[in-house]
Amino acid sequence: MRILVLGGDGYLGWPTALHLSEAGHQVAVADNFARRAYDNELGVESLVPIEPLQSRIAVWKELTGQEITCYVGDLTDAIFTYRIISEFRPDAVVHFAEQRAAPYSMIDRAHAVYTQQNNVIGNLNLLFAIAETDPDIHLVKLGTLGEYGTPNIDLEEGWLEIEYKGRRDRVLYPKRPGSFYHLSKVHDSHNIEFACRVWDLRATDLNQGVVYGQQTAETARDERLATRFDYDAVFGTVLNRFVIQAVIGHPLTVYGTGGQTRGMIDIRDTVRCVQLACENPADRGEFRVFNQVTESMSVQDMAEAVQAASPEDVRIEYLDNPRVELNGHYYNVTHTKLIDLGLEPHLLSDTLIESMFGITKRYAHRVRPEALRPTVNWRKPNPGT
Amino acid sequence: MRILVLGGDGYLGWPTALHLSEAGHQVAVADNFARRAYDNELGVESLVPIEPLQSRIAVWKELTGQEITCYVGDLTDAIFTYRIISEFRPDAVVHFAEQRAAPYSMIDRAHAVYTQQNNVIGNLNLLFAIAETDPDIHLVKLGTLGEYGTPNIDLEEGWLEIEYKGRRDRVLYPKRPGSFYHLSKVHDSHNIEFACRVWDLRATDLNQGVVYGQQTAETARDERLATRFDYDAVFGTVLNRFVIQAVIGHPLTVYGTGGQTRGMIDIRDTVRCVQLACENPADRGEFRVFNQVTESMSVQDMAEAVQAASPEDVRIEYLDNPRVELNGHYYNVTHTKLIDLGLEPHLLSDTLIESMFGITKRYAHRVRPEALRPTVNWRKPNPGT
Repeated sequence: MRILVLGGDGYLGWPTALHLSEAGHQVAVADNFARRAYDNELGVESLVPIEPLQSRIAVWKELTGQEITCYVGDLTDAIFTYRIISEFRPDAVVHFAEQRAAPYSMIDRAHAVYTQQNNVIGNLNLLFAIAETDPDIHLVKLGTLGEYGTPNIDLEEGWLEIEYKGRRDRVLYPKRPGSFYHLSKVHDSHNIEFACRVWDLRATDLNQGVVYGQQTAETARDERLATRFDYDAVFGTVLNRFVIQAVIGHPLTVYGTGGQTRGMIDIRDTVRCVQLACENPADRGEFRVFNQVTESMSVQDMAEAVQAASPEDVRIEYLDNPRVELNGHYYNVTHTKLIDLGLEPHLLSDTLIESMFGITKRYAHRVRPEALRPTVNWRKPNPGT
Repeated sequence: MRILVLGGDGYLGWPTALHLSEAGHQVAVADNFARRAYDNELGVESLVPIEPLQSRIAVWKELTGQEITCYVGDLTDAIFTYRIISEFRPDAVVHFAEQRAAPYSMIDRAHAVYTQQNNVIGNLNLLFAIAETDPDIHLVKLGTLGEYGTPNIDLEEGWLEIEYKGRRDRVLYPKRPGSFYHLSKVHDSHNIEFACRVWDLRATDLNQGVVYGQQTAETARDERLATRFDYDAVFGTVLNRFVIQAVIGHPLTVYGTGGQTRGMIDIRDTVRCVQLACENPADRGEFRVFNQVTESMSVQDMAEAVQAASPEDVRIEYLDNPRVELNGHYYNVTHTKLIDLGLEPHLLSDTLIESMFGITKRYAHRVRPEALRPTVNWRKPNPGT
């Protein structure tokens, strides 16, 4: 298949591009390097050094002989978006190219507006480019499990069969997300479902859990193929951040009581899930949602798992939760559709955590400990326009 | 109370501003005149001539002695939005200032993007301006009944109490809207609910039916106070359009079989509902939704009502439905909350339709009949970037 990976320079976009190339697909990547620019803005860097995209692509070709086409541009620029679709003519488009951090979207008004504008408008341009160029193209869109919030009923995969006052319907799962970032993904999902309904497009919305890990079979081949590894309180996902804190002797910073539960997934399963979604496309007109998650853990349990795996003594520190969320809540996520397609999950184990310790130790000197502390508060917007 | 009406130059914003002023409130209006610009773009005009906003305000002062403060600017300009909130210091903000036509949002990519960007970003700026200036300000936001789509269960007022697999929750009503415009309002609703939840704002989301009629007690006092009356296929709402078609001897253009049902409301009830919402504010932290509608009718029934009220013979013409919607469907809208606050609905009657005939006859020479035909098709996006 011909597969275009949008956001192909990012934490997950890059390993996904390699995994699809390794699986024999013709791959192109597109990126505007917004993620590298956020680092400049926040004064942090990936813990693991990363090469420029063009160099990564050259190394991959050197090692495997496989070409990856590279487009540099921005999806909010409609001319760019139409051009890459009509030039590359993909069978599937994997869309990772969105601002992906909840805390970043909560910094202030400008960051909230940037997040929703960038994500929603980029995705709209993409929908129109597909509909006008070739409505047969399968859109594989990265969403997040955080779109659902924490309702008191099971989290189903995108749709809900309900009975109400003696009548039945299948409705879009009612979502109640927890940040302007999560909201942007809910907006995207509604827009995509509509495009499938009126234009007969085909789409898979991957509502993904919190990703942990840094290596896939492909990125591990050469250190110049490494993907980024974020540890800061804005972009670092929780388990990755705990490992880094453990290595540098920083207490593990648990927000609130740690009773809040998160769905999780190993980065090796992420790239496999995207492959499965591409190779088993949605039908024309179908808006399909997969909960891309393999297990659920409370934040406290994650901290204890990292503590147990750490060779050094590690302390847990409980901070006031900067987010507005329930400390304890019902959480039962349905996630059978990717298993049905053949996913064999890697569950979190001491082995995985130990391998992360190895990577982290090597680059521990690059950590700026002050970046580990949360500075963005959900409860009151930062002043300024 | 001090009430700021955003979109105060529009079809409903202007009569609402007058109604609130008449009721003794201190009123300000803000507008960027986008609605007048759409007329220029589409080559149409309000059937009833309208005065410049500044002249309308001067006439109102001449007749009543009441001042209405006037701000000219755009909500997507955050500096403007923060300035009007901090200068006028409203108790309530009534937000009509969005692109409001489903067909306009479906013209092509550029119009879809404009609609979502204008509506979502303007509303986000407003939420931040309120949260940072005075979180006690009550936001009264105009949404639409079309946000819900046509599920096979009752349309409740914004929230749904459900039981699922033996567990219960109160969730946001799952919506499945029918155009990029309707989607923009769903995005707004999600953003507003979140702002109430994390910042403790107070908001009322008015999910309004299709409005008909052109006069309120206040606008009828002087023809220079008239509000706009749209008849074209892009901005003309269905019943208003039928009356105009009847008067000029044009067949009533019913889309599809006419079996699709719409919730309706008289313009005199719109202004009263907004007054009731302002005078009975939501609690801090409450996201309250009212279905602002008084009766439901199929499009066929509306056409027949206009036919019956017309002194001349009128023909109904059935056109291919340019929208993607069910021709026949379940439709039962709950709308008790505004009644509980004191609304006494005007139901559609021959008298009302006859009064609309009077207004329409006077200005029938201004109609461009070619503008009555739908040109925007939901099924395939118009090409172009």
